[in-house]
Formats: sequence, structure tokens, C-alpha cells
Amino acid sequence: MRMNERALLEHIMESTCGTPGVVIGPGDDMALLDVPGGSGSAGLLISVDQVVDGVHVRADTTPWSAIGRKAVARALSDVAAMAGRPLASIVAAVLPPGTSGEQAAELFDAMRLAAEQYRAPIIGGDMAFHHAETGPLTCSVTVLATPTTNGPVKRSGAMEGDAVCVTGMLGGSFEEGGAGRHLEFEPRIGEAIMLQAILKDRLHSMIDLSDGLGTDGMQLLDKQAHLQIRIKASDIPCSEGVDWRRAVADGEDYELCFCAEGELPEQVLDCGVTRIGMVVKVEAGDERRIVVIDGEQEHDISGAGWEHCS
Amino acid sequence: MRMNERALLEHIMESTCGTPGVVIGPGDDMALLDVPGGSGSAGLLISVDQVVDGVHVRADTTPWSAIGRKAVARALSDVAAMAGRPLASIVAAVLPPGTSGEQAAELFDAMRLAAEQYRAPIIGGDMAFHHAETGPLTCSVTVLATPTTNGPVKRSGAMEGDAVCVTGMLGGSFEEGGAGRHLEFEPRIGEAIMLQAILKDRLHSMIDLSDGLGTDGMQLLDKQAHLQIRIKASDIPCSEGVDWRRAVADGEDYELCFCAEGELPEQVLDCGVTRIGMVVKVEAGDERRIVVIDGEQEHDISGAGWEHCS
Repeated sequence: MRMNERALLEHIMESTCGTPGVVIGPGDDMALLDVPGGSGSAGLLISVDQVVDGVHVRADTTPWSAIGRKAVARALSDVAAMAGRPLASIVAAVLPPGTSGEQAAELFDAMRLAAEQYRAPIIGGDMAFHHAETGPLTCSVTVLATPTTNGPVKRSGAMEGDAVCVTGMLGGSFEEGGAGRHLEFEPRIGEAIMLQAILKDRLHSMIDLSDGLGTDGMQLLDKQAHLQIRIKASDIPCSEGVDWRRAVADGEDYELCFCAEGELPEQVLDCGVTRIGMVVKVEAGDERRIVVIDGEQEHDISGAGWEHCS
Repeated sequence: MRMNERALLEHIMESTCGTPGVVIGPGDDMALLDVPGGSGSAGLLISVDQVVDGVHVRADTTPWSAIGRKAVARALSDVAAMAGRPLASIVAAVLPPGTSGEQAAELFDAMRLAAEQYRAPIIGGDMAFHHAETGPLTCSVTVLATPTTNGPVKRSGAMEGDAVCVTGMLGGSFEEGGAGRHLEFEPRIGEAIMLQAILKDRLHSMIDLSDGLGTDGMQLLDKQAHLQIRIKASDIPCSEGVDWRRAVADGEDYELCFCAEGELPEQVLDCGVTRIGMVVKVEAGDERRIVVIDGEQEHDISGAGWEHCS
């Protein structure tokens, strides 16, 4: 049995639910913590994300400055998903034994610059060196943020009739010929705050797309077995040269996907937001899933892959 | 050139000093952050620590529960060093590709138990799998804490005439025949809070001993070039079978070392605290260092090693 992250988080969550001070526990993009003595405080959002050589990046062919930037930007994408305001970050890295001071400086300077750009200055860190020559570069970035006055936007909370929308274009983030979008994306922090300011309580749920719409989108429905997201294939904003199948599965888009009630104001649609589908209620017996409608055919894209279902 | 952690932290610190809201930046055991909206809040302490297979532990011979426990306990030792009260923790791990669900559960359950034992429940996390078979198990633990009403105790702040003290026994933490103290130590959180409650402003500076007294003790003097710590060899509390040379250099003790003004009350000495030396002012030209006096001889133990100097 190989344990996946979701199972792990649920495993941890079991004992964390109900812990005093933990308003939102493991399982969302960030945890929300009440800070003692912080009367009038809206609480603190916190999460951690990692970039590992061989998994998320290729340290032998990618400039270390791009790796450092990605490590911070990935963590900040979680802040965007909660519509939070970045506050500070803490970084930890394990470097291969042969790392030069120049390489380390390139990595950390890039992290520092990205963190400052998004107003989450690095306030602490830890560094270790692998003993084994083959030890892969590993960066973990913990980020702190504060909710806006409208509060954080959770992953779960989608309701029947909600419009399902995404920012930007999906798929092809790892494309060889492309701009290396998985390295150069901008966390949608500003967009998220704007969306929440405009939509307020109508913004029901939001997530950032790191694993792809098929996998991440399922979180929007959480455990609501009676809901389904139905997407029209031709409405999916696909990156150039990418079809909808790749757009929903490639991952590493770091765009926002959200569910909102009612009509979307022009000012939202003008900001690169595309309405791709709708949350619908399904009959008892039909399960929670995400369906893409392509002409006459319906495709279940729930989870990593998809099945042909009609 | 190989960059060490201290150089890295100084590198990062340059640009973080003066950042609004950052009361204590990189370079201390934990950073202290003002939390917006937290009127009346004493701020938030935060730090990150890592445990890497092959560096801090041996994953092939050590139970993963012990590794998980150590990862959390190491991070909590930094809370002790600031005399903080643990609040919550966030964990991130990179697992070898062949990790079973049982192993992952053993690791995370141990982290969860240790975190709960010290009242720093895990509120979030991230998990990734190495692609390479040789990828070593890596755990990073970010811990949040709150200062007591007396405020955090910094590393720097030692003053001329201060007594230099340690808790517990030093050296031999990795001893084969020993109890594996580097795996089983208790972070001195309670002791630190008690010390501060008793000594108050007389507790000038404190650090936890992870790299050994010779290396960590230098942080107590910070950049005060005119100060020296002078230690009597026979006063160093050495673990069984360990001489003073190993006691100051073995590392991984996770005991506290602190500088305090005036006489130490009985209640402090009764709690396993040993006075080992004193902070003295030295002549201009003599440099900041730590000296152990063994009979007629003086040994400079500043930094990792030591030199025979008279």
C-alpha cells in the first residue's frame, strides 16, 4: 500500500479536528489558526509546500534561481487560493554535498526576491547538506498570511447552481517549447483578493490548480456526494497547442478554480476569468465527480485520469 | 567555496532587518513576528528545522517512529531556547519511492504524538515522494509558539560577569551503547519557562545545544568581540564515559545553555542546571571566543574544533 497525500492529511486531520485555536485544520490550502492574545485578530493562515529535484524540477538543467523562485511561488499560490494576504515566509533547504556558495546564494537570493515581491519576506530558515552525493536538492517553504476582512475562502463550500470558473489558461505548463510556465507563473494573489472583494459571500469555494482540474477540482465538492461539476469542453481555456484533455490533467497551472453564486460581473470576466461549467445536483446513487461534456460524449475526469462514461 | 548555514542566514538577514513586523529576524533560534490586528498580542515565534536521512538519522536502522519524533523534538528545542510556549506545527516530508503506507503512518503518527505531547498540534502538512530510489527521507517541521509575558529570550545579550550555565549532561548523544539520546531527548520547554519565570530580566541569553557548546556557545556572544566565555573543564557535566572534549563538541545534546546575571537561586540549581563558567571582558585585540580551562592549560573551543593555546 502506498499512501497518498490526501490519505495522510485525513489521517492527521482525524486528531486535529477540535483542537482549540485551529479554525481550519489540515486538508485545505492553508490552516487557519487563532493567535492567542490577538484580540481583534482575524487569525493566521499557514501552510507549507515543497520543491524536490527530480519531482517538481530538474536541478541539472534548470537555473537554481528558477528553482528558488518556484519554491516560493508554489507556496504563495496556496495563499491566493485562500484569498489571503502574504505576511512572511520561512524556508528550509537540503543541498547536495557539492553545492557551491554561488549556487546556494543563487537559490536563496531568488527565494528572497520572490518572497519580497509578494510581501512575504523570509524571516527564518534552515539549511542542511546531504551526505550522499545523490541527495536531491529539496526546498520547503512555509508561508504565513492573514485573511482579508471577508475571511478566508475554503476549498469546500460549492453549492448547487454555482458557476465554476478558472483564471488564465490551462495545460502545457511543462511544454518543452513553452515559456516554462511551471517555473514562471505568478501566484494569483491579487486576482483572488479582487474576486473576493467583488463577489463577497457569493464566492463559495476556491483552490489553486497544481495537480490539474481533474484532481484538484474534486476538493471543491469535498464530501458532498450529491454534487457534480459539469464542464463544457469547448469552454475550457486551453494553452496554445494543448487540447482539453491535457488542460484538465497536465497540472502545475497554478491558476485559480472557484465556485461562485449568480451572474459574474463584467469586471470579473474582464480579468482573464473564464466560466467553464456549473455545479449540479445529481440523483441519489450517482457519485460526486467532475464531468466534461465534449459534443455528444461525457467524460469523467475525477481524479488523475478519466473514464469514458457514455 | 561551501556556504555554511550561518553565512546563509547572515546573507538573508541583510535584507530582512528593518522589515515591518519582523521583531526578531533570521539568526536567532526563532523569528518573532508582529501579527497584524493582534492588538495586545505579544507576537508569534516561528522557526523551521529538518531531519535528513544520512545526516541526522539513519533511516535503514532507526525506527521511523523515532525519526518522526526527533524531527518534531528538534524543532521544539528551538521553542525552548526562546522560552516560548508551543502553539502549533506544520510538517513536510519527502519519502523514498518505495515507502509503504505503514511506514508513512509510523512516521506521521510519531510526529503527531510528539507534537501533541508538547502542545504544538500539527495543523497542516505536505508530502512528496522522491522519484529516485536513492532519495533520502527528509522531514521539515515548522513550529509556531508564543512568547511568555516576559518576552522571548534571545541568543545574544550575554553581559560581562554573567554566569554561563547548562541543563542536563553533555556529550555522547550518538553513543552506540547509550540510550540514543539524540532520538529520545526531551526539549527543555518547561525548564526554559521556569528559568525565565525565576530569573526574569537576569536571564540575558539562551540557546539550545545542537552543534555542541563550542559552536553554539559562540552565538551567545554574538558580535560582542570584547567578551569571552571562560569555562572550567571540571565543571562541565559530562555524560557517562565522555570526557569534556567530547562534551563540548559531540553535539545533538538539545540541552539549554544560558547566561544569567547574579547568583543562581537554589531552585534553579536543583533542577539539573550546572554553572560551568563565566562571561568575562577581554583586552582589545583579544577576540570573542570560548575557552576551557583544564588545570594549567587553556583550550580555545570556539567553533567546531578547538586549538591548544597555552
